[in-house]
Amino acid sequence: MKKLMNAPDAYVDEMLEGLCAAHPTLVRTGERGRVIRDARAPKNGKVGIVSGGGSGHLPLFTGYVGRGLIDSCAIGEVFAGPAVGDCVEAIKAAEGGRGVLRLYGNYGGDRMNFDLAGELVEEEGIRTTTVLGCDDIASAAPEESAKRRGVAGLILAYKAAGAAAEQGADLDEVTRVAAKAVERMRTIGCALYPCQVPGAAEPTFTIGEDEMEMGMGIHGEPGIWRRTLAPADEVADEMLERLLADLPQAHQERVWVLVNSLGATSLDELFIIYRRVKAGLDRRGITVLRPLVGHYATSMEMAGCSLSLIGVDDELDALLRAPADCPFWRNQP
Amino acid sequence: MKKLMNAPDAYVDEMLEGLCAAHPTLVRTGERGRVIRDARAPKNGKVGIVSGGGSGHLPLFTGYVGRGLIDSCAIGEVFAGPAVGDCVEAIKAAEGGRGVLRLYGNYGGDRMNFDLAGELVEEEGIRTTTVLGCDDIASAAPEESAKRRGVAGLILAYKAAGAAAEQGADLDEVTRVAAKAVERMRTIGCALYPCQVPGAAEPTFTIGEDEMEMGMGIHGEPGIWRRTLAPADEVADEMLERLLADLPQAHQERVWVLVNSLGATSLDELFIIYRRVKAGLDRRGITVLRPLVGHYATSMEMAGCSLSLIGVDDELDALLRAPADCPFWRNQP
Repeated sequence: MKKLMNAPDAYVDEMLEGLCAAHPTLVRTGERGRVIRDARAPKNGKVGIVSGGGSGHLPLFTGYVGRGLIDSCAIGEVFAGPAVGDCVEAIKAAEGGRGVLRLYGNYGGDRMNFDLAGELVEEEGIRTTTVLGCDDIASAAPEESAKRRGVAGLILAYKAAGAAAEQGADLDEVTRVAAKAVERMRTIGCALYPCQVPGAAEPTFTIGEDEMEMGMGIHGEPGIWRRTLAPADEVADEMLERLLADLPQAHQERVWVLVNSLGATSLDELFIIYRRVKAGLDRRGITVLRPLVGHYATSMEMAGCSLSLIGVDDELDALLRAPADCPFWRNQP
Repeated sequence: MKKLMNAPDAYVDEMLEGLCAAHPTLVRTGERGRVIRDARAPKNGKVGIVSGGGSGHLPLFTGYVGRGLIDSCAIGEVFAGPAVGDCVEAIKAAEGGRGVLRLYGNYGGDRMNFDLAGELVEEEGIRTTTVLGCDDIASAAPEESAKRRGVAGLILAYKAAGAAAEQGADLDEVTRVAAKAVERMRTIGCALYPCQVPGAAEPTFTIGEDEMEMGMGIHGEPGIWRRTLAPADEVADEMLERLLADLPQAHQERVWVLVNSLGATSLDELFIIYRRVKAGLDRRGITVLRPLVGHYATSMEMAGCSLSLIGVDDELDALLRAPADCPFWRNQP
């Protein structure tokens, strides 16, 4: 697959250089420049929030570093977790004297390194907690939800927890809010075309010119089924039904909806999907408080989309609406 | 090419339905629902600004309907101009008693229909003027710049003229600002993969798996050369050199830069390109006042990017920074 890039080895560093050049609130730090922190972080007296993961998902993760979201981010190679040292640096960059929440997606490599980093900074007197994004319902059964991978829904956990931290909540409280957001969040994706890791010989998967895959992960992890491409309305209906079958009834009164492009899929298509999702929610008497439709968490040029629902109460809704200042979050007052 | 869509005939209407459902400031009107207006338009005593063109370029055109940008938009089928009746409706939706600027891209079909619509509304006492976006330097020689096509740069003309209108300028003044923005704007694109019009049997063009095309238009119009894909730095250098060779020296002191994805091209790649463009501008002593990097004017799933420069003075810079409220414009204070 063709890309506008130079040497594959330089892909991540050149991307980060451009990202920070375009967004002066983002600062590169860490020994190898793989930590991105808010130029205004750490904020004294504020609970810090750190995240991280592999590159290739912009705007996730680094694009959400900013006031009212996450303070810093450790970033790895494309689709590869960040190094332990960078996780340590990122936690320190977020520490404003009241502890740091580690809030990232549930992937084995990321967990191992963030856990080790947590132990290392504890020795220096920084208290940390962990909440893992695990919203991808296709990646494990409901009774094993702790095994689920984190995908686009993580952004709304950033937003809720980030707003709580900005409002002065302590570490336990920020952690509670993040966990509550994760608990009420469900996502499912579908893919039409793969992406390719820079320098790799082949795309992340192969798929027939008339096929789609339901439930595929953002690194091309296998989904639930692969069949002939269905009309958008059928795809939207199935994604919505699967999410609602998984989200506890108690959280189905009022929702925020996120229709996210995996990369190549156009806004046109996302709006066609959203239109059907909205109708399905209306029909069930579920109120959409806010829809977000666009590129939030991608897999480079992968084609497809994900649908996320978060069931909110007044607290979460207010935190999601609270003003933030970050390159890739639009305020939703 | 696979898309998340239903019947091709329903593509545009379903997209518009979803767009307006997701963004309550956008209202569908017109006989066939092909006019999108700001819910707050027309604003009494404000000069109106109308635009329009074919679908398939979101966020352009309809995504920029909002306060401080354009008031209304007539939208056609994918890559096909809007109907005369819809242009008339869109002009009327923008008229707040002080006249309407028609500000759209320089394509024959759009011009014919907007010109006719202008004549029709003049009979009803609505004064209109026209400024055409013609920023694509690959589409005609400098001495024939009036023949150039309008591409991504149109958005910054919306922004400047929209701010002037919002600040109370009269029609002549808003028209002058739009013309000034267009005069100082240059864009060039490059394409790696084509897109496909819904329902069409084939993609808009074919290109080898190792090839790129420099200067291609947003509907797949032929460019300047087609060769083996070059490294991103070479592509960025050539695009920048071509723009600077075309933009009068007097407008090369301070610029806003727009690095725009044509659709499938990832933010990663755009930032790699922007990094190099920034270095090239720095080396020449040209000040980047603001960079915009993202999806601004696409061709559905086409892969590639465009680079735009606008040479600004204090007036244009202030107008571009002025606050606006629109689904797809981020304020750049």
